[in-house]
Amino acid sequence: MTRTSLVISAIFCALVFATAAQTQTAQPKNAPVPFMAPAQASQAEQDNFPPQLLEELSAIKTAALSDDYAYHQLAHLTENIGPRISGSLQAKAAVEYVAAEIRQLGLEVHLEEVKVPHWVRGAETAELVDYADHTAGTSQKIVLTALGGSASTPADGITADVVVVNNFDELKALGHDKVAGKIVLFNELFDKQKAAAGMAFAAYGEAVRYRGAGPKAAADLGAAAALVRSVGSADFRLPHTGFTFPSGIPSGAVTAEDADLIAHLAAQGKVRMRLTLTPQKLPDVTSYNVIADLKGSEHPEQLVVVSGHLDSWDLGTGAIDDGAGVVVAMEAAELLQKLHLRPKRTLRVIAWMDEESGSSGSAAYTKDHSTEFPNHVAAIESDSGAAHPLGFEVKMSPHAAELLRPVLAVLESFGANAVQSSSYPPGADISAMSEAGVPALGLEQDGRTYFYYHHTAADTLDKVVPVELRENAAAMAVMGYALASMKDPLPR
Amino acid sequence: MTRTSLVISAIFCALVFATAAQTQTAQPKNAPVPFMAPAQASQAEQDNFPPQLLEELSAIKTAALSDDYAYHQLAHLTENIGPRISGSLQAKAAVEYVAAEIRQLGLEVHLEEVKVPHWVRGAETAELVDYADHTAGTSQKIVLTALGGSASTPADGITADVVVVNNFDELKALGHDKVAGKIVLFNELFDKQKAAAGMAFAAYGEAVRYRGAGPKAAADLGAAAALVRSVGSADFRLPHTGFTFPSGIPSGAVTAEDADLIAHLAAQGKVRMRLTLTPQKLPDVTSYNVIADLKGSEHPEQLVVVSGHLDSWDLGTGAIDDGAGVVVAMEAAELLQKLHLRPKRTLRVIAWMDEESGSSGSAAYTKDHSTEFPNHVAAIESDSGAAHPLGFEVKMSPHAAELLRPVLAVLESFGANAVQSSSYPPGADISAMSEAGVPALGLEQDGRTYFYYHHTAADTLDKVVPVELRENAAAMAVMGYALASMKDPLPR
Repeated sequence: MTRTSLVISAIFCALVFATAAQTQTAQPKNAPVPFMAPAQASQAEQDNFPPQLLEELSAIKTAALSDDYAYHQLAHLTENIGPRISGSLQAKAAVEYVAAEIRQLGLEVHLEEVKVPHWVRGAETAELVDYADHTAGTSQKIVLTALGGSASTPADGITADVVVVNNFDELKALGHDKVAGKIVLFNELFDKQKAAAGMAFAAYGEAVRYRGAGPKAAADLGAAAALVRSVGSADFRLPHTGFTFPSGIPSGAVTAEDADLIAHLAAQGKVRMRLTLTPQKLPDVTSYNVIADLKGSEHPEQLVVVSGHLDSWDLGTGAIDDGAGVVVAMEAAELLQKLHLRPKRTLRVIAWMDEESGSSGSAAYTKDHSTEFPNHVAAIESDSGAAHPLGFEVKMSPHAAELLRPVLAVLESFGANAVQSSSYPPGADISAMSEAGVPALGLEQDGRTYFYYHHTAADTLDKVVPVELRENAAAMAVMGYALASMKDPLPR
Repeated sequence: MTRTSLVISAIFCALVFATAAQTQTAQPKNAPVPFMAPAQASQAEQDNFPPQLLEELSAIKTAALSDDYAYHQLAHLTENIGPRISGSLQAKAAVEYVAAEIRQLGLEVHLEEVKVPHWVRGAETAELVDYADHTAGTSQKIVLTALGGSASTPADGITADVVVVNNFDELKALGHDKVAGKIVLFNELFDKQKAAAGMAFAAYGEAVRYRGAGPKAAADLGAAAALVRSVGSADFRLPHTGFTFPSGIPSGAVTAEDADLIAHLAAQGKVRMRLTLTPQKLPDVTSYNVIADLKGSEHPEQLVVVSGHLDSWDLGTGAIDDGAGVVVAMEAAELLQKLHLRPKRTLRVIAWMDEESGSSGSAAYTKDHSTEFPNHVAAIESDSGAAHPLGFEVKMSPHAAELLRPVLAVLESFGANAVQSSSYPPGADISAMSEAGVPALGLEQDGRTYFYYHHTAADTLDKVVPVELRENAAAMAVMGYALASMKDPLPR
């Protein structure tokens, strides 16, 4: 693929990975796909996972479940370094910190260059200045935040009428005449019941379309600005930011409460809003993926990737999205070193840059390494939080998935043994390699509260429960080591 | 009592009403105090509640449980008028609106003058600018809000080291030398488990002491500013505002997450903060309690008060605190008029002004009406939200409470029949009359989520479940009419 198509593909995956399958087919997200596995381990399973390897996996699990390495790393990333949006000094500090920490574990560390966008949040305020039965001289504050990459209003804002639509069809039906010059609010509800019932990513996939494509659709009809109802499941007047496709107009997310308020008032008559969003797009910045190899003893050229993304949004401190993913990948290496376990193949820890703001990190990796993808035996990413792990979402052949049964048996004691098959790459940063045929695994967590906090100011360390983070580190380390040490590479 | 002592008493009650009993005695908030009632209705009960009155109470209940008058009024107050902090144009609009609406019901309405403070929120930002392993050139945003009545920093803020204390003893132990010129953070935890277990007001009572008295204690030791950990049970990076005793120094509430962050970093070394809070104290404003009488048919001079407070904090729209209380009191009148029921005694609907910012409304009422308190037969206030009602907290003689048994039997069908005896007034605005001997009742709701939203931007209409608001209106109307129509006035 060209660089451009790679970037577009990666952006798409970042936006809807792990959700498209659920929104486009009848397969619910969290219905495990049972293996038609025999009661006894097959010969292939026994060959691939001899008793010693199973003992090693068990030892890794036991060590992980009492290891707070990941938590301590996460505390440093989130509290001492803080938010790590692409292009920021904190993202730079995080790259240096993670590289140094992994070097200290004894791994070979490379920083691989990535050009990342540098978008900086500015003022973000809005008020309703006129509406039905409005009290003269007053305005009502609207709580909102700019979407990543949003264009800016003038410093003193714009004032325009608000048009509320529930979906793209309603927008189209209004047409240019009724949209031009207006502030469009996409009031797509996030399906909280679905999220509470364990299908959080399906709910996300449905709502995030408006965050991604809404502003551009509104701009195409001449809108002055676009707002979306925050894509999230809780009601704490928290705006949820996130990536939006470039539209050229100021774009923000209002809270669920504010979307309700505007929709209710709009049903009573004209609603006029003053909107100020003054983010800046600064020149691109050189940043890095952190790539660290624990060399394989027998097949160092064969790679198993364990990964998370190091950049975060700027509102919170990126604990669940996705500091947690990075630190559990780091702990996989830490555990093997501590236990003096050397995998047969190389375990590659990757802390991806820029998953949130365009996925240029994974695009750069693909550009630099795609010729080596045939030697990428498998890739794991954790990017769905830090809650209790349920198992893995996988994109691989049924035969390959079936071979993992002995590993799942090790993970069963703490419940991380579910496997769900997906027809889409189960992680944004591993999507290109997945599309290239590399067996791909997404570490999957209990997502019921994930979208309470996702992309908000409340994505902070306290949302991570240490015992659950240990479980995630155990799942990542056990699966990573298993893939790197099973007799044969996982078949494609 | 003098005006001053009345005000101080009312402020105290506003701050800790319904909580002090729980924090000072072993009596848990939500343990119902069972009546030692006979299996059969006593003669006094039968005399006071003849069959026709019981039928009327039942009819009121039935009507209330399908009446959306209160909800429609609440929608207007919160969405068309908005936040209603003392002294604001919205508070003025709310007074006029509520008066007009009750007049339209056919009641005699008086606006009774109250001088209220006029404090206006300004800029409120804070950043940590230096701390352990700080990334040069960066700062970490601290989410906070000014406490009501807070003094202002200079427009460009102050920069000072932060001292974290967990309680007043730790502050005292530090003394003037270690506190002077510093920003003091009171990091008293809100007991979320207690709140979740049904003892929300007990948890509130414990934590709110720091919001109330912390800034003054810090100022007395020369602190430059005082911050408290938000008094609230949820973790959505939401700051909770509220009244604080005047201290002369800038005073704010940081979110639970930010308190954790500061405390963690302070444990590692020096933490330096830039703090900007620029509220203004403007001249007092003339405002009003809205007093509306539905005249009694036999004893118009005897009064039963049904009430809530009309002012709110400015961050949210005051739906649960306390628009809900006002509209259920309004609906009590609406129901009686709709059903053509005339109470024997006068039902007085009061929408109190300024409960939040000094309780000058109830102080003015006490000043103007205390000579009539002997004719105040009973007073009810609803100021604990709009969730499913559990019954009433009462301060009255056991004998009086026992007489209410037939009313509780009417409320039993929807679960609002618990009665808890309190040794403190069960409502801030009715505290003076309660102290004067008037039997006082606080409508009590399921408080488990109340302190998620209390005094935050998330106190908005969506937090009110229409069916639960109907239940509250039913409880208020049934109890109000019962007290106003039972044969004898409730004994003191």
